[in-house]
Amino acid sequence: MKNHLVILFFTLSYLISAGMSQKTLWAQEPTSLDARFAIAIHGGAGGDPANWSAEEKTARQEGLKAALQIGVDMLKKGSSSLDVVEQVVISLEDNPVFNAGRGAILNAAGEHELDASIMDGLKHRCGAVASVTTIKNPISLARRVMEDTPHVMLIGSGAEQFADSINAATQTPEYFRTPAQIDRWKKWRDRQKENTQGVSAAETSADPLRYLGTVGCVVLDSAGNLAAATSTGGTLGKRWGRVGDSPIIGAGTYADNASCAVSCTGIGELFIRHHVAADIAARMKYGNATLNDAAQEVTHQVLPKDSGGLIAVSKDGEISMPFNTPGMSRGAADHTGRFEILLTPVEQ
Amino acid sequence: MKNHLVILFFTLSYLISAGMSQKTLWAQEPTSLDARFAIAIHGGAGGDPANWSAEEKTARQEGLKAALQIGVDMLKKGSSSLDVVEQVVISLEDNPVFNAGRGAILNAAGEHELDASIMDGLKHRCGAVASVTTIKNPISLARRVMEDTPHVMLIGSGAEQFADSINAATQTPEYFRTPAQIDRWKKWRDRQKENTQGVSAAETSADPLRYLGTVGCVVLDSAGNLAAATSTGGTLGKRWGRVGDSPIIGAGTYADNASCAVSCTGIGELFIRHHVAADIAARMKYGNATLNDAAQEVTHQVLPKDSGGLIAVSKDGEISMPFNTPGMSRGAADHTGRFEILLTPVEQ
Repeated sequence: MKNHLVILFFTLSYLISAGMSQKTLWAQEPTSLDARFAIAIHGGAGGDPANWSAEEKTARQEGLKAALQIGVDMLKKGSSSLDVVEQVVISLEDNPVFNAGRGAILNAAGEHELDASIMDGLKHRCGAVASVTTIKNPISLARRVMEDTPHVMLIGSGAEQFADSINAATQTPEYFRTPAQIDRWKKWRDRQKENTQGVSAAETSADPLRYLGTVGCVVLDSAGNLAAATSTGGTLGKRWGRVGDSPIIGAGTYADNASCAVSCTGIGELFIRHHVAADIAARMKYGNATLNDAAQEVTHQVLPKDSGGLIAVSKDGEISMPFNTPGMSRGAADHTGRFEILLTPVEQ
Repeated sequence: MKNHLVILFFTLSYLISAGMSQKTLWAQEPTSLDARFAIAIHGGAGGDPANWSAEEKTARQEGLKAALQIGVDMLKKGSSSLDVVEQVVISLEDNPVFNAGRGAILNAAGEHELDASIMDGLKHRCGAVASVTTIKNPISLARRVMEDTPHVMLIGSGAEQFADSINAATQTPEYFRTPAQIDRWKKWRDRQKENTQGVSAAETSADPLRYLGTVGCVVLDSAGNLAAATSTGGTLGKRWGRVGDSPIIGAGTYADNASCAVSCTGIGELFIRHHVAADIAARMKYGNATLNDAAQEVTHQVLPKDSGGLIAVSKDGEISMPFNTPGMSRGAADHTGRFEILLTPVEQ
């Protein structure tokens, strides 16, 4: 009896929201309405997959697959979009293959500084942390900022003090630093020694040092709520407390139930300049663009070539994952059974 | 002869950009075309002017007047919008009456942490600094981040290291801390002692401790270029490295030659959630809203009451200065001779 009431509730909600006639509605399969969801994830748009070994590709594919499966399993059980984006990003932060949490890229000093943000499309609540160094899962700290403080963004040692006050899980520098990132940093350092101009390394995807393995997740849950989350170690050899777009609400992360949820990856400065995540939402809200048109236009007409990519899901469950780099590690799934992991461009 | 060539150059530029016929053009007064400009400034939207002494009001009015005059004088001489917003904000940062630079509000530890950002509407270049403590003029450091680094945002001690590397002017804590802010902080601290709930003080404008004297400037220059700048000490008793909207491009500051330039003031968290500055630009670009309609809608329909205000100038020189607080210290001027300083709502 309870189940029937639940189905009736969702059916009536759908009837009202879609403005459909009762006749049309009952022609559909009511059970599929309960399980309606869409999820997309990314593991960064930097670097050319053509330069990667088979082992590297497999590790990325396996990491993305495991993270996407966590999200799908939760969504099938009715978890909220906020819970899902957090847990999926935790999985990617904990995986040393990606540039977030464990395995984060190293700054000019050979240390890691982690940035993350999360946003709830229902109430436009959001949280962000920047330049934290001991927090095991920056995305969870960003969520606590959102839920347990009146603030949106906490940075540096102040953010670590807040983490202490809520007993957030911490880790040592050794946990975060992986052999692959130490090796990449040493190559960068040697190149800097030869380079008296002080020009940043790894400016293009053709450069084998280029590595922008930011992670992110966007979700539409069965209640119709959107959420987005992004986490990163930033860029190789970054200096001076540089912060990119990942912890900037509206630039690297945005969610709004009236339009879409977006998570970006790439050269963060360009994504801040063009406030990319919120711009896609704005093109839908004010210009009546479809999600895919908005996402493609921003990626290919606003952003310069080889600057990055993004994942986005609309309020209707449409998924778009454009990028202007040689590849973007990504995955998408929804209630129809779609479940795909991709590293390079494909004809879809 | 040189003057005639200059007039000819501006006239032809105007002819091309406006798409007007030569006949229509010559019917206007050419000299007024050279001097076309618009500027707006603010000194914060928090607090109720009804609670201020006559001396406080006069000090605010005089400070705004001096800053606005600097901008008008520069614009009449043909200065760029970027130069103008920087110099106007420097004047407000140096003035201890406002909550930016000297006179900044104190955080929970009784120290100051300064945030600022600047943006160029022509090329969408931007720069920002957050949580700096020794920099005399944070807005100038934000501009150097924009012009002398590949980055947009530098924070904390990293930003100070960059400042050292370019010999940016610094000051001691004593320079920034004014008797009025020390007094305000002591009252806040005493209230915190009595308050075991840890709730932030000064939540509403009715609270005499409320003080959101962020400063900002938006300009359309005679070349048709827009720029925006914002600088702040943040909120009284802020903790944990809290960063508000002022250094967040798209939230507290945005400039885009295709639409408008915006600088915000208020409860920064709300301005980040709704990415207010870029949202006004988006409503103009994608929804064909006028500047004033976009600014009024965001201030009165998106933002909650008593959260703040903003100044904005459109690509056509229209100025809008809405707020949902009891007052907002502000000023506006343009090439027609308009020059006004206001603290409270007026029928305009």
